[in-house]
Amino acid sequence: MSSVFLEDLDADTFAEYLSREGSTVIIPTGATEQHGPHMPLGVDAMLSAAIAASVAENIGALVAPVFAYGYKSQPRSGGGNHRLGTTSLRGVTMINLIEDVVSSFLAQGFQNVVVLNGHFENYQFVYEGLDCAVAQARKDGNAGRGMLLSYWDFVDETTLQSVFPDGFLGWDIEHGGVLETSLMLLLYPDKVDMSRVMDHPPAQLTNYDIFPEDPGRTPSSGCLSSAKAATAEKGQQLFEAVRGAVSSALVSELQLMAAPRKAN
Amino acid sequence: MSSVFLEDLDADTFAEYLSREGSTVIIPTGATEQHGPHMPLGVDAMLSAAIAASVAENIGALVAPVFAYGYKSQPRSGGGNHRLGTTSLRGVTMINLIEDVVSSFLAQGFQNVVVLNGHFENYQFVYEGLDCAVAQARKDGNAGRGMLLSYWDFVDETTLQSVFPDGFLGWDIEHGGVLETSLMLLLYPDKVDMSRVMDHPPAQLTNYDIFPEDPGRTPSSGCLSSAKAATAEKGQQLFEAVRGAVSSALVSELQLMAAPRKAN
Amino acid sequence: MSSVFLEDLDADTFAEYLSREGSTVIIPTGATEQHGPHMPLGVDAMLSAAIAASVAENIGALVAPVFAYGYKSQPRSGGGNHRLGTTSLRGVTMINLIEDVVSSFLAQGFQNVVVLNGHFENYQFVYEGLDCAVAQARKDGNAGRGMLLSYWDFVDETTLQSVFPDGFLGWDIEHGGVLETSLMLLLYPDKVDMSRVMDHPPAQLTNYDIFPEDPGRTPSSGCLSSAKAATAEKGQQLFEAVRGAVSSALVSELQLMAAPRKAN
Amino acid sequence: MSSVFLEDLDADTFAEYLSREGSTVIIPTGATEQHGPHMPLGVDAMLSAAIAASVAENIGALVAPVFAYGYKSQPRSGGGNHRLGTTSLRGVTMINLIEDVVSSFLAQGFQNVVVLNGHFENYQFVYEGLDCAVAQARKDGNAGRGMLLSYWDFVDETTLQSVFPDGFLGWDIEHGGVLETSLMLLLYPDKVDMSRVMDHPPAQLTNYDIFPEDPGRTPSSGCLSSAKAATAEKGQQLFEAVRGAVSSALVSELQLMAAPRKAN
Amino acid sequence: MSSVFLEDLDADTFAEYLSREGSTVIIPTGATEQHGPHMPLGVDAMLSAAIAASVAENIGALVAPVFAYGYKSQPRSGGGNHRLGTTSLRGVTMINLIEDVVSSFLAQGFQNVVVLNGHFENYQFVYEGLDCAVAQARKDGNAGRGMLLSYWDFVDETTLQSVFPDGFLGWDIEHGGVLETSLMLLLYPDKVDMSRVMDHPPAQLTNYDIFPEDPGRTPSSGCLSSAKAATAEKGQQLFEAVRGAVSSALVSELQLMAAPRKAN
Amino acid sequence: MSSVFLEDLDADTFAEYLSREGSTVIIPTGATEQHGPHMPLGVDAMLSAAIAASVAENIGALVAPVFAYGYKSQPRSGGGNHRLGTTSLRGVTMINLIEDVVSSFLAQGFQNVVVLNGHFENYQFVYEGLDCAVAQARKDGNAGRGMLLSYWDFVDETTLQSVFPDGFLGWDIEHGGVLETSLMLLLYPDKVDMSRVMDHPPAQLTNYDIFPEDPGRTPSSGCLSSAKAATAEKGQQLFEAVRGAVSSALVSELQLMAAPRKAN
Repeated sequence: MSSVFLEDLDADTFAEYLSREGSTVIIPTGATEQHGPHMPLGVDAMLSAAIAASVAENIGALVAPVFAYGYKSQPRSGGGNHRLGTTSLRGVTMINLIEDVVSSFLAQGFQNVVVLNGHFENYQFVYEGLDCAVAQARKDGNAGRGMLLSYWDFVDETTLQSVFPDGFLGWDIEHGGVLETSLMLLLYPDKVDMSRVMDHPPAQLTNYDIFPEDPGRTPSSGCLSSAKAATAEKGQQLFEAVRGAVSSALVSELQLMAAPRKAN
Repeated sequence: MSSVFLEDLDADTFAEYLSREGSTVIIPTGATEQHGPHMPLGVDAMLSAAIAASVAENIGALVAPVFAYGYKSQPRSGGGNHRLGTTSLRGVTMINLIEDVVSSFLAQGFQNVVVLNGHFENYQFVYEGLDCAVAQARKDGNAGRGMLLSYWDFVDETTLQSVFPDGFLGWDIEHGGVLETSLMLLLYPDKVDMSRVMDHPPAQLTNYDIFPEDPGRTPSSGCLSSAKAATAEKGQQLFEAVRGAVSSALVSELQLMAAPRKAN
Repeated sequence: MSSVFLEDLDADTFAEYLSREGSTVIIPTGATEQHGPHMPLGVDAMLSAAIAASVAENIGALVAPVFAYGYKSQPRSGGGNHRLGTTSLRGVTMINLIEDVVSSFLAQGFQNVVVLNGHFENYQFVYEGLDCAVAQARKDGNAGRGMLLSYWDFVDETTLQSVFPDGFLGWDIEHGGVLETSLMLLLYPDKVDMSRVMDHPPAQLTNYDIFPEDPGRTPSSGCLSSAKAATAEKGQQLFEAVRGAVSSALVSELQLMAAPRKAN
Repeated sequence: MSSVFLEDLDADTFAEYLSREGSTVIIPTGATEQHGPHMPLGVDAMLSAAIAASVAENIGALVAPVFAYGYKSQPRSGGGNHRLGTTSLRGVTMINLIEDVVSSFLAQGFQNVVVLNGHFENYQFVYEGLDCAVAQARKDGNAGRGMLLSYWDFVDETTLQSVFPDGFLGWDIEHGGVLETSLMLLLYPDKVDMSRVMDHPPAQLTNYDIFPEDPGRTPSSGCLSSAKAATAEKGQQLFEAVRGAVSSALVSELQLMAAPRKAN
Repeated sequence: MSSVFLEDLDADTFAEYLSREGSTVIIPTGATEQHGPHMPLGVDAMLSAAIAASVAENIGALVAPVFAYGYKSQPRSGGGNHRLGTTSLRGVTMINLIEDVVSSFLAQGFQNVVVLNGHFENYQFVYEGLDCAVAQARKDGNAGRGMLLSYWDFVDETTLQSVFPDGFLGWDIEHGGVLETSLMLLLYPDKVDMSRVMDHPPAQLTNYDIFPEDPGRTPSSGCLSSAKAATAEKGQQLFEAVRGAVSSALVSELQLMAAPRKAN
Repeated sequence: MSSVFLEDLDADTFAEYLSREGSTVIIPTGATEQHGPHMPLGVDAMLSAAIAASVAENIGALVAPVFAYGYKSQPRSGGGNHRLGTTSLRGVTMINLIEDVVSSFLAQGFQNVVVLNGHFENYQFVYEGLDCAVAQARKDGNAGRGMLLSYWDFVDETTLQSVFPDGFLGWDIEHGGVLETSLMLLLYPDKVDMSRVMDHPPAQLTNYDIFPEDPGRTPSSGCLSSAKAATAEKGQQLFEAVRGAVSSALVSELQLMAAPRKAN
């Protein structure tokens, strides 16, 4: 029962891990959201879980079960909540979900609880849940810490230029685009069908939101930019960049040892 | 991208499925909860997901991402919420989570939303969430239906006698016992270590609950009965019984065709 | 002003009681729910209050005002929430109600707060409210304890065989049946009209729930089994069994003295 | 089973009542709150229930189970929430409780739902619950109406002068004073002990509230004025005045027939 | 940057103020509510803010940004929530809003947090928010205090007789009447148009509330009494009376020095 | 009573406005948050209100009372919630506040409700509140629309280059920097003291968040970049750019006439 995935550990092995100095759990947060005709609905959950596992192996952390449902998809970063397949939580549910799980991990004794986010729209609601959980834990005498990040924020400039040789237009339009598709090609090649990629120019997004959403503004592909240039090689570059940078940030921030400490 | 798992489908395939008569999604609900030294923390999620998938294949339904976190483990059915590894949600969070996801599926057009529960303590909170979601959907003119079951309630008397030849003592003490362990041996043999089973008499449970919990009353194994008699063969018997009975109930209740209609 | 009912005590007598070692309050929880044409809507509240009073006299506890409204009636244990007369609370309201009242009693100084439940569907929501109230009290330095039980779980095997000579089919179908009707005949004979009992076989319940409820599945009587065999004598047997067993459990669990200590 | 109390009716009798033109339920709302050394904790619930029953008989309405727990007692109208015996609900719980029960009665088909309040501090929270329930019912196509009153607001000037010959100082200081004690002497004489009345001048209340409460500002009696002048005769005068005026208001407002229409 | 308005202070000046003995913030609470054809929608916010500022200058306190939205207008004190221009919060939102802001001020170090209310219907919801915030602060070891008042409760008898020479009929019908209009004529003369005052007898209010509201019962002016007799001179009398009495109450209750201590 | 500010209008004038084609209300959302030693705590509220007023004049809309309190300040965009003067709301309160006010405006008959945001951290919580309010309004048959924007997203590239000749580093570090200070110098020159600007390099922000916040990472100024280069002229450029672009977006999106239509 050797695994970085907490759900694969038996209770005794888990308890042994918890007693270590620097015990850290990484919670991947994704979504159930359409990602075009060429990728599955679970992309955000799959990628955040895979990256979390890879980082966890690097730094000797555990990975909690992924949050498979996320906050509502928004037209300016995900195509919108109206599209079939997109299955979302209200803001308050997302906040409470994070607050409960983080509170539970802190109460069990984790020194560090890290949320590794893979769905753009989750960030602020996860922030609020984490903030409330850690603030309450402090009042209760618990010294545990929290940390929150979105994995794409750790792609460095050099990798960006290499992956987007024609210029990088922003993470917001990467929904279903080269970033996610390349990572999927690397990590879950069976779940991508490049022949179904719809090639179109990047979506022209407004700098505001309207309610109710206007389905006509989301490209019919459901993606905000074309994934045509995606490759597993680019996925490898992105993955390495993210794994390294996130691992370094965690080690330095949370004072974990850099040497791998597998949870078994 | 042929799969019963909704998260594996691309948006177009998913939309095509939704347009069919009798479209049905099964949401497996589990927990992250200690299951003794011989089984992993994810047992409830793993079993509900596997059974849901098997039923879905039978009846042409889809399976939604499993709810990996559940309501608080209780001493009289799960060993208690105080044990390490047990990571739980408050009642209100569980209710809201179900309500949001079910509402979203109904709004997308599913005719039937089924929750297949694998964690004893979830039931009433899932009930409330489903009841609220369907009641609201009706007010909004949506004719979708909901259904809720715990898989062990579908084990018939004959199977019960075969699996528990010395007498069946009730599902409540089956936490970490023969039922769950046999099913895990069948479905996830790599995740069970029978050499670590702690053999002890069934827990003597009170017919009431106390607050705060008394850790001294939960067997040190964390299980409420011994899994020593568990075998993959018993798992097969249980699995077949449940798959058949749940499939029949769904087909007859939801008027699905019995013939398999794979989601692809 | 000698009474076990807290609502009948003046503030000074109440304060004097609170200062005693082992101060205990029992909160009866019932419902406003149809119980067929032969019994009143208040059965669950009436029975839980009467049993609580009897236990309180035995062990020197007080009885709080009964919770006259409960969680939604469910078809598999109460006939369903759609029937006229059934007046219910949402899950979150039930949780908060218990949490507030228990928190208030603990803050006033009760050493033990016991909920004696008389409505099947209340149990898990009361559990959650009690759990939250006691957990918070502990954080605030309050050492009070909570306890939760449903009275029928204290009927012993011998009594069961005597009351149900043809075999006992489970508490779930006892809604409006022999158990409740016998107790009502003993405790509130004026409120039962045996000539109106509708005699029918036990309801054939599914092992799952559907949403919305199907009124056609509840027997037209609103009861899940026939009360024809109910008698005051059976009520007496049941009442004695429950009073004795609950009193013993409370005394031993909460370390109260067995000798009656009337609240005056 | 002839009674104005809904909890005493069987389901068929109740259903028959509901089918009548002008079907009306009165919900009495009280509190569990200290009322000095001479009266029991349940005064507010007892009085609102008795007055509701009397009005219901007059106008052919039913009475729902009393709300025995109310919003926090305040120093300027009830002595304060810090005193032993005072057992209160948070504002949000009170709002939700009213909203659920009123919504349920409206959905069952009552044409009128009246809340007759007997605890000063409840009023605004009941108002909010009623407002939300009726507003939602309207959206759902339900034409039921709501009404809210506190019984003391129906004491006329003549009665006031007769009951308070030395001048009436305001309802706020009547907590545990002549009004409530006189009504209790009339309606529940066994529950009042006039020998324990603490005679003191009316409490000098500030025209503001402070947090936390200052226990030193509440008279040691827990009452805001002396009940020494209370008599059953005054109780009779007050009771007649309130019964008549409330009945008239309901008949004229809700267009009920004035002739008694007993619920059986 | 010398001002009693907290929003006008820079962070350093604010921090310096907070470090003083007796640091006090006054939160004015108003509403956005119709006040007839002769006064603007913001009357309650404008008056509470102006009075708070004047008191703050007197006693050396700061004034927080006004709460411009309040609880629902009620027919018996504000004309009702159905009228155009009246823009209101639900009870729970009002409670949470107060709780958050008061908690934040207490956590920053204010010794006293005063809410000066200018909208009748806010009072009980503000009370609940303040009570919860201060109770939690105490549990967290914070010794800050709260205080709550409505400004009109500080008008003395002499002023009342002078301003209402024909007799004062109660604050409830002063919505849009002489009190508010006179104060507006004094403090915001440009925002009052006396030529548009609709002169009519005081509204005949019922002593109960109905749901839904009956627009026909609110005078067409939207005011509950005529403002015809309003003058700036009466405004001056009222203003002086309130400023003096509120200042005295705060100084004596919160032990502030009477001498002005400007926040700069 | 001619004004774009809704709070300055009397009820009749307001009602007349509401009856026009294209009726639009703009809600400015700000915060009470430290903005360094050179600017007041109310910067975000002041700027959003001023810009909203200017846009409203342009397009014939009204401006609602500003939301003076906002979501928690975050270290990566506002210096953090731990700094004195920063007074914040929980996420759920912010969501509910927006939901209530927007729902109320839609119910009164506004065709368009626009939120113009001036505090970075508010955006997602306002989004959720708006989304819920508009979705519910649609279910209730209301055809009103919502719109959400942050004003700085309307500064065009040319203006950006002119205002930040040395390169623009991102809006996140503009907290208390050149953008906000320049606008304040233009709009509220009395409230800025340029002599107190602390000149320091831009804050080096991490690409993740930690809990609890680390006060040591926020520059001692409380600002994330230096305001030294701020001038009223730059403020004018920014203001014109924003006013024009926001007005155009609203006119085209909401199909308002471009010609000014003052609300009087």
